Amino acid sequence: MATHHFEPSVYYTAIGAHEAVLHIDSGDTVVTTTVDAGGVDAAGEQVTPGGNPQTGPFYINGAEPGDTLAVHFDRLVPNRGTGRTSTTIAAHVLDPEYVASGLPENGRGDWEIDLDQWTATLISPETKLGKLTLPLEPMTGCFGIAPPRGQAISTATSSTHGGNMDYRGFCEGVTVYLPVFVEGALFHIGDGHAVQGDGEIVGTGIEISFDVEFTVNLIKGKSINWPRAVNDDYILTAGNARPLDQAVQHATTEMVRWLNALGLDGNAPHILLGQCVEYDLGNVYDPAYTMVCKVKKSILQDIGLDLDPLIR
Amino acid sequence: MATHHFEPSVYYTAIGAHEAVLHIDSGDTVVTTTVDAGGVDAAGEQVTPGGNPQTGPFYINGAEPGDTLAVHFDRLVPNRGTGRTSTTIAAHVLDPEYVASGLPENGRGDWEIDLDQWTATLISPETKLGKLTLPLEPMTGCFGIAPPRGQAISTATSSTHGGNMDYRGFCEGVTVYLPVFVEGALFHIGDGHAVQGDGEIVGTGIEISFDVEFTVNLIKGKSINWPRAVNDDYILTAGNARPLDQAVQHATTEMVRWLNALGLDGNAPHILLGQCVEYDLGNVYDPAYTMVCKVKKSILQDIGLDLDPLIR
Amino acid sequence: MATHHFEPSVYYTAIGAHEAVLHIDSGDTVVTTTVDAGGVDAAGEQVTPGGNPQTGPFYINGAEPGDTLAVHFDRLVPNRGTGRTSTTIAAHVLDPEYVASGLPENGRGDWEIDLDQWTATLISPETKLGKLTLPLEPMTGCFGIAPPRGQAISTATSSTHGGNMDYRGFCEGVTVYLPVFVEGALFHIGDGHAVQGDGEIVGTGIEISFDVEFTVNLIKGKSINWPRAVNDDYILTAGNARPLDQAVQHATTEMVRWLNALGLDGNAPHILLGQCVEYDLGNVYDPAYTMVCKVKKSILQDIGLDLDPLIR
Amino acid sequence: MATHHFEPSVYYTAIGAHEAVLHIDSGDTVVTTTVDAGGVDAAGEQVTPGGNPQTGPFYINGAEPGDTLAVHFDRLVPNRGTGRTSTTIAAHVLDPEYVASGLPENGRGDWEIDLDQWTATLISPETKLGKLTLPLEPMTGCFGIAPPRGQAISTATSSTHGGNMDYRGFCEGVTVYLPVFVEGALFHIGDGHAVQGDGEIVGTGIEISFDVEFTVNLIKGKSINWPRAVNDDYILTAGNARPLDQAVQHATTEMVRWLNALGLDGNAPHILLGQCVEYDLGNVYDPAYTMVCKVKKSILQDIGLDLDPLIR
Repeated sequence: MATHHFEPSVYYTAIGAHEAVLHIDSGDTVVTTTVDAGGVDAAGEQVTPGGNPQTGPFYINGAEPGDTLAVHFDRLVPNRGTGRTSTTIAAHVLDPEYVASGLPENGRGDWEIDLDQWTATLISPETKLGKLTLPLEPMTGCFGIAPPRGQAISTATSSTHGGNMDYRGFCEGVTVYLPVFVEGALFHIGDGHAVQGDGEIVGTGIEISFDVEFTVNLIKGKSINWPRAVNDDYILTAGNARPLDQAVQHATTEMVRWLNALGLDGNAPHILLGQCVEYDLGNVYDPAYTMVCKVKKSILQDIGLDLDPLIR
Repeated sequence: MATHHFEPSVYYTAIGAHEAVLHIDSGDTVVTTTVDAGGVDAAGEQVTPGGNPQTGPFYINGAEPGDTLAVHFDRLVPNRGTGRTSTTIAAHVLDPEYVASGLPENGRGDWEIDLDQWTATLISPETKLGKLTLPLEPMTGCFGIAPPRGQAISTATSSTHGGNMDYRGFCEGVTVYLPVFVEGALFHIGDGHAVQGDGEIVGTGIEISFDVEFTVNLIKGKSINWPRAVNDDYILTAGNARPLDQAVQHATTEMVRWLNALGLDGNAPHILLGQCVEYDLGNVYDPAYTMVCKVKKSILQDIGLDLDPLIR
Repeated sequence: MATHHFEPSVYYTAIGAHEAVLHIDSGDTVVTTTVDAGGVDAAGEQVTPGGNPQTGPFYINGAEPGDTLAVHFDRLVPNRGTGRTSTTIAAHVLDPEYVASGLPENGRGDWEIDLDQWTATLISPETKLGKLTLPLEPMTGCFGIAPPRGQAISTATSSTHGGNMDYRGFCEGVTVYLPVFVEGALFHIGDGHAVQGDGEIVGTGIEISFDVEFTVNLIKGKSINWPRAVNDDYILTAGNARPLDQAVQHATTEMVRWLNALGLDGNAPHILLGQCVEYDLGNVYDPAYTMVCKVKKSILQDIGLDLDPLIR
Repeated sequence: MATHHFEPSVYYTAIGAHEAVLHIDSGDTVVTTTVDAGGVDAAGEQVTPGGNPQTGPFYINGAEPGDTLAVHFDRLVPNRGTGRTSTTIAAHVLDPEYVASGLPENGRGDWEIDLDQWTATLISPETKLGKLTLPLEPMTGCFGIAPPRGQAISTATSSTHGGNMDYRGFCEGVTVYLPVFVEGALFHIGDGHAVQGDGEIVGTGIEISFDVEFTVNLIKGKSINWPRAVNDDYILTAGNARPLDQAVQHATTEMVRWLNALGLDGNAPHILLGQCVEYDLGNVYDPAYTMVCKVKKSILQDIGLDLDPLIR
C-alpha cells in the first residue's frame, strides 16, 4: 500500500508496451502530474510534443493477460491557471451540406481557471459569449493500458484498452476497470480537461495540466472485454468504435455480460436494461467514438444483487 | 383558445396527408386518447392493427409550409392498469458475434401500472428480477406532422417531420416545435410509454394507452429544419438518421442554427457548445435512430440571450 | 401477353398506393416514356415538378402481398439529344475536413447525347475536360412498387420496395424481382440516366427522358425480402440502407437466402460467397445507400444448380 | 538496382517501427517469402503465431516522412499445394435478425492449389458445392509501412499506412504508393490469398504462403494521404475506415486530390468522377473496412492528361 511520488520526464502519444517508468504493487497509490494535450506543463512550459502525451506507463507487478486492473481516481485536479480550447465544431460533427456552406475559422480559445471559485472563464476570443463562466468539472480525456498483439495505439483514439474516450464521467472518485493484455498492464494517463461538453465536439475540452493521484488494484484471473467503471450511483461500460452504433453495441453487450456475472441470467438483464438503461456520449471527435452504457446501482440493489465484488 | 374533446375512431401507422379528423385553431387545446403500440385501447380492446397507430391527424387552420408548429404536451398519462414490453434486446443493439452465440428468446413482459403509487411493476415472466418496480415516467414515443413531397412515413421510423423518436424527454410539460410541410400541418400522436430505457433497446417501452392533452400554437413564417423542444431547463434539438453519427450531425447543426437565430454568431455557438453541450440518446431500435442535442437555458440566460420568442 | 402503349399525364415523387394509371396482366408489356429527374420530357418541356417523377403506377392484375413481381427491362433508351448533370461531388461523399476547406460551386453540366454514335459529350461548363465524350450506358435510377403499411416513400430514397437505387446494372436486358406489398403491386418507373458513375456521387447521372418498354410477370406465392435481379452473367441482390455497412448486410443476407432456395444449405452458400462473391456500389448520395451483391451464374451452373425457376 | 534474396526468420502482427530486417536502396528488388495468415510456411510448418504475420520490415535508404514509397509487385504466387478458408460468413456482414436466427457453425475449409492448372479446388468439408473449382487470382491481403506517432497498428486492420485491406486488385503487376511516415519507410508484407471474394466476408481468402518479389522506388518530397495504386487500366485510391461510408469519403477525396495534381482543377475532377468513377469493395470484415475508388487511365489520356509521373 505504498504511495509513490512520481515526476514524469518522458511522455508517449501512443499507448503501448513502452519501457515502464515505475513498477508498483497492487494496492499502491501514485501521485504524479500530467501535461496538457498540447504537451504543456503546470509551469506553462512545452515539455513534449502535443497530441495527448501520456504520463507512464506504470508497471503493476504481477499483472498478466486475462487479469483486470482497477484504477481508482483519487484526485484529478488542474494545476495551473489557464486552459485552452478550439473554437469551431469539428466538420464531421455537423451536416456535410452545412459545412460546405462555410464554417467560422478555427482558432484558440483561452480560459482562466480559478481553483478557489472552481470556475473556468472565457478570456478570448471576444464574442457575444462575453466572459462565459462555467463551473469546473475536471476529468481525464485519455488513459489506458497496453493493448494486445504488440500494438501501440495512438492517443488520438480508443479501443478495448481505453485510450482517448473523453467521457465526462471519468473524473475524481470513479474506479475504472481495464482488461490486462500484457505483463505489468502498463497504465498510462494524460489529457486533463477542466471542463468538457459531451462529445468533445470542438476536439478539445478546456485543456490543462493536472495533479493526479490514483490507486491500482489487480483483480487476478478475472477478465473483461471493454472498459468498465463504477461511481457513487452507477455501474457503467464503455464501447469505443465508429460508427456510434457499434460503440452502442460494444457497451451494451459488455453490460449484459456484467449483469450475467452479477447473477442475472436469461431474459433478466434484457428486461432490466430495456426499461432502465441510460447512455452517455463520450467522444464523437476521434477515429473511434465512445458510448457509455450505465445502470443505477440502486436498482441492482433493489432486486437483491450483491455488488461486492463487482468484477467476477 | 377552444378545448376540443376528441374520441378517435381511425388510426394510422404511417404519418402523412391523411384526411384530418379535426380542424383546430392555433391556441386550441385537444383532449383525446391514444391506443398503445399494439393497437389496444384503455379498455384492453384491440381496436386497430398494431405498429404505433396514431390518433389524428389534426388540421391546424392557417398552417402552411414554411411555418413552425408548437405543440405543448399538457398531459400525457397512462389510462389503464397494465402495460407490456418485449424481453430481449434487439440483435442490432448487441455485438454481432455475441448475437451469433445465441440470445434468449424474445417474449412478452407484463407490467402492472399503479397510477396512485406512480409505479410500474413487472408481473411476468418470472426472472431473477422478481417484481421489479420502477417509477412511472410517461412519454410519447411517436408524434409528428405530415412530411413533404407526398410522403407517408411509417410510424416505425422518424425523420424531419418527427415520428418514432422514442425520446424520454418528450413528456408532459414539454413544448415541441415541428417544421410544417403541408397545409394544416396535420399533427399525429400515439405510442405512449409508461416507462422506457434510453434507446428503447428491446424495441418497446412499457407500452400503454394514454390520456392525452395538447395545445398547438402556430408560428407563422418561421421555419426550422428538425424537431426542436423546450422544457424547464433546456432547449433541445432532435436529429433522426442512421448511423447515430448522422443523427448527431443533424441535431448539432440544428442547435447551431438555433443559437444563431437567438443572437450568437461566428465562433460563439461553437465555443459555447464545445464546453456546454449535452446529448441524450433517443431510439436506437428503428430504421432511423435519434440523438438529442441540448443546452441549459440558464447558460443562455447568463450570457444575456433573450429566449422569448424561442423560434425566430 | 398484350402490349400496352401508355402516354403518362401524371407523375409522382413518392412511390406509394396512388391510383393506378393502367391495369395490366402478368405477361403484358408496357411501352411508355419517362421524364427526366427534373420533370422535363422528350420535347424539353417541364411537364411536372422535379425530384425523380415516376411514370405509373401500373396495377398488375392478381398481384397480392407475398407474391414477387418480375419486371424485364425490354428497352431503356434516351429519347432526346441533351442531358444534364450536377458539377460538384456531394459534400457527404468527401472527407468533412476537405469539405470545410471549400468546394467548387455546384452548377449545371450540359451534355449532348448522340444516339447514332451512342455517346454523351460534355458541352458546358468549359473545363480542362474539354469535350469529354463517354459511351452511353442507359439505366433507370429509380423504379419500384408500393411499400407496405400505407407508406409513400420519396423517390429520393430507396428501401425494400426498390426506389432510387441508382445502380448502373439496372439497364436494358435485366430482369428485376420486387416483393409485392399491396394488391396490384403498383409498379413505378422513372429517372433515366444516359451515363452514370458508380455511386451517383454528384447526385445525378446524365439526366434524360427515356423511351421505356417493360414486361411484367407475376410469381404467385413466392416472396423475397429485397430487390433481386438477373442478367446474362449474374444473379444479384440489392440492399438499401445507411450506412453502407447495413446495405451490405441486407444484400448479403438476401443472397444467402436465395442460394438456400436454389438448393445450397448449411455452410455451402457461405463457403461459396466467401471466395466468389462480388459487390457493386449503387447510390451513395441518397438518404439510403445501395449495395449490390452478385454471383456468377456460371459458377452456380458448374456446381449443378438448376436456375429455372430462379424465384422459388 | 540490386536484387536481394531474403529469407525471413521473424514476423510481426502489428505494422510499426520494428527493427529492419534488411536495408535496401530505391530501385532495389527483394525476393522473399511470406507465411500464411495462420503463420504456416511453404513446408506446412507453423513458424510463427497466426494473425497475418508480416515479412519485414524493409528499410528503404533515404526515405523520410513526407516522401512517397512506390512498391511494384513483380511476383505474388502461392508456393504450396494447400490453402484454407473459414466456412461461415462473419456475423457483422449479415442482418442482425438473421444472425439471431442461427448461423451454421464456422469451421475450416481445405482447398487444393494446382499451380499448373492455376486452380483452387475445395476438398473439405463435404457440401453441395462438391469439388468447387475456381481459377487462382493471387493477391496480398496485408502490406504497409510504419504509421506515424509511434503507433504499431495491428495487421487485423488498416489505415493510411496500408495494412489489412484485402483488396483483390492488390495483385502481381500492380504498383502501390504509400505515404512515408518514418525514416526508412519500413515496408511489411504478408497474408497471401490464392483466391478471395470481394469483402473477405468469411474473414479469409484461401490463405496460403507466397513467393514474393517486389521492387521499391522512392519518390522524394511528394506526399500522399492514402494508399494509391496503378495497374494496366486504372489509377486507384484506397480509403480505410468504418463505416464504409467513411472509407468512400477517404478514397474519393484522395482521388480528387490526385486528379488535381494531374492537372484537373475547379469542377473538372468532380464532373469527371461524377460520370466515370468506379468503386471496388475491399475488406468488410476488419475493424476498418476498405473501399477503392478508381478511374480508367484511357479516359484521363483521352482528355490529354500526362500520366508520367503519376505522383507529383
